[in-house]
Amino acid sequence: MTIPERSLELHEKHHGKIEVVSKVPLEAREDLSLAYTPGVAEPCLRIAKNPADVYRYTLKSNTVAIVSDGSAVLGLGNIGPLAAIPVMEGKAALFKQFAGVDAFPIVLDTQDVDEIVETAVRVAPVFGGINLEDIAAPRCFEIEEKLRARLNIPVFHDDQHGTAVVVLAALFNALKVVGKELSQTKIVVSGAGAAGTAVVKLLLLAGAQDITVFDSRGALHSGRIDLNSSKQELVRLTNPRGVSGELKNAINGVDIFIGVSQPGVLTGTMVQAMGRDAIVFAMANPTPEIMPDEAKKAGAAVVATGRSDFPNQVNNAFIFPGFFRGLLDARVSKVTEEMKLAAARALAECVDKPTTELILPDILDKTISPKIASAVRSVL
Amino acid sequence: MTIPERSLELHEKHHGKIEVVSKVPLEAREDLSLAYTPGVAEPCLRIAKNPADVYRYTLKSNTVAIVSDGSAVLGLGNIGPLAAIPVMEGKAALFKQFAGVDAFPIVLDTQDVDEIVETAVRVAPVFGGINLEDIAAPRCFEIEEKLRARLNIPVFHDDQHGTAVVVLAALFNALKVVGKELSQTKIVVSGAGAAGTAVVKLLLLAGAQDITVFDSRGALHSGRIDLNSSKQELVRLTNPRGVSGELKNAINGVDIFIGVSQPGVLTGTMVQAMGRDAIVFAMANPTPEIMPDEAKKAGAAVVATGRSDFPNQVNNAFIFPGFFRGLLDARVSKVTEEMKLAAARALAECVDKPTTELILPDILDKTISPKIASAVRSVL
Repeated sequence: MTIPERSLELHEKHHGKIEVVSKVPLEAREDLSLAYTPGVAEPCLRIAKNPADVYRYTLKSNTVAIVSDGSAVLGLGNIGPLAAIPVMEGKAALFKQFAGVDAFPIVLDTQDVDEIVETAVRVAPVFGGINLEDIAAPRCFEIEEKLRARLNIPVFHDDQHGTAVVVLAALFNALKVVGKELSQTKIVVSGAGAAGTAVVKLLLLAGAQDITVFDSRGALHSGRIDLNSSKQELVRLTNPRGVSGELKNAINGVDIFIGVSQPGVLTGTMVQAMGRDAIVFAMANPTPEIMPDEAKKAGAAVVATGRSDFPNQVNNAFIFPGFFRGLLDARVSKVTEEMKLAAARALAECVDKPTTELILPDILDKTISPKIASAVRSVL
Repeated sequence: MTIPERSLELHEKHHGKIEVVSKVPLEAREDLSLAYTPGVAEPCLRIAKNPADVYRYTLKSNTVAIVSDGSAVLGLGNIGPLAAIPVMEGKAALFKQFAGVDAFPIVLDTQDVDEIVETAVRVAPVFGGINLEDIAAPRCFEIEEKLRARLNIPVFHDDQHGTAVVVLAALFNALKVVGKELSQTKIVVSGAGAAGTAVVKLLLLAGAQDITVFDSRGALHSGRIDLNSSKQELVRLTNPRGVSGELKNAINGVDIFIGVSQPGVLTGTMVQAMGRDAIVFAMANPTPEIMPDEAKKAGAAVVATGRSDFPNQVNNAFIFPGFFRGLLDARVSKVTEEMKLAAARALAECVDKPTTELILPDILDKTISPKIASAVRSVL
């Protein structure tokens, strides 16, 4: 059977992937008296008197909401909240497996910015953090910003920031392999959606100086009159050389290609034009901007994709479990850029000696999440 | 240590009582490919094509939201959503323990009817049912009604209907003990809130003919001008003899007292006035309307309370796990009165030979929930 067939069988057999179980015994009559009535009144009263005790006596201290409207699920597009559930359950399972975090899918029967924000605020009391997931750009930016302003628990849009952190970590190691400095490189980013925007901002924070961003209509530059506000912001932050036009005309001498866009955006000829020691991250899912063998043949030194069947998989699962572990452990109320930078450095350091085929560690390595968590806590 | 002290210790040790765990293996790289990317795309696509497949491939088929605004928690009153969490976690733990149902607490940062309804509708996609919990009357009635109209998953306010079903089951057996027919009895119900209202309606459906309801100001009758709409409805359904005034003046010759009100409402003298073979259900929590020994001394034949430290505990935990098991198994979209009646009969039948001290079965008996589930399915 193929992977899709086997996945379907797995999902049907278990009716999904996660379950809610008791952490306390419920076998004896006395167990019920402690976990439920009458004993349960005591923690209730303590929390009523001192709301901060909710972290002491309830699941809030260890629980994250995975909030999605199903508008940008994997590479499948706007398939809606019901069809998004398998992804959210998968994330919840990984949260627990890699970082002991309890996560629950909150998929929403609305795609309106203000309704999403209102709903997340109203269900927030039981959660210690909010992982936004698979929400389309540009409304994901507004939702995250409004939630950050209204909530005193951390909010993290994984498609933006999880991706950005893994990309930066992979890039740190790819640069080691080719012996270049980030601040000296020319970078193009293909894709100006949620992931592309966050990648650009984190690269800038890490010291990148020369980034040009491309959407499906070409380079983002100050002459474009078709840009939404988040793309306008990118124009202000990037493109110091005033590049305009198509990617293929701007690729000469570029050191790093970062693709979070569409298959076919990058060709072998374009990789050849990048020149010596090119770094190609072709992360469109499921089909990359260029297939790794083609990029290699055209001379790329380091190639990464989003896929598990090629070397160097840029996978958000490296980050989100440990990142939230750190946020919850330190009871952080706002995620900062410094936390993301520290997490990227920590992930990069998980690889002792980076090589062209090994710029990221083994995804199954259980020591990664504790290191990410520790990095997050280190910059409080 | 006392029960409250030990309960506090238990809650602190585990940081609450429930956790979210994976039902599928996540040890090997291939496991990740099936549970997460790329395999997860296949169930997503199936559900996108046929939304009913969400019951086949996701947790929705087995998962209930426990929705509360924290406005009427146990006997503690309006302590708010954070302080309500321990109760909701306890219910979730019992759901799993007694009926294998996955339940998750959704406690809301609002006590506005329309906001509660909107929020529950928006988070509904991931749930197969909604258990409303600890929401104050009269807004609980409106919330339940609106949610029933807007959702195609079952909605069940446990404080109303769970209580009503257990009370009716206990009453069936108490009547066997004293050899009376429900339709021939005089009944008083003390308390016209969520529980009292639902108890009255289910008793009427079961054949009760003569019920008089009392709130803190006396009997509900057509001359009262201080009644909200739900109490006005009770007036239309009850009080065939036109009783007015205080409970103590109306208790003569009453067969059944059902208290869901306040300690001290019923005295020994009043129980004496009830006469031969009186049935007293004094279910105010944590302190009953009358203590069982006092009621017994005054001549009551059968006494029940809400407490685990006396015989005949009228406990919702007999009902809600199995009731939702039945709803989920049959994929019921609306709860009906007949389901409640069938569940009450099934619970009553769990006791072979009812006695004055045994009108309800052992709460730990794991055969109860399957019987309740079967009863719910039997009236589809």
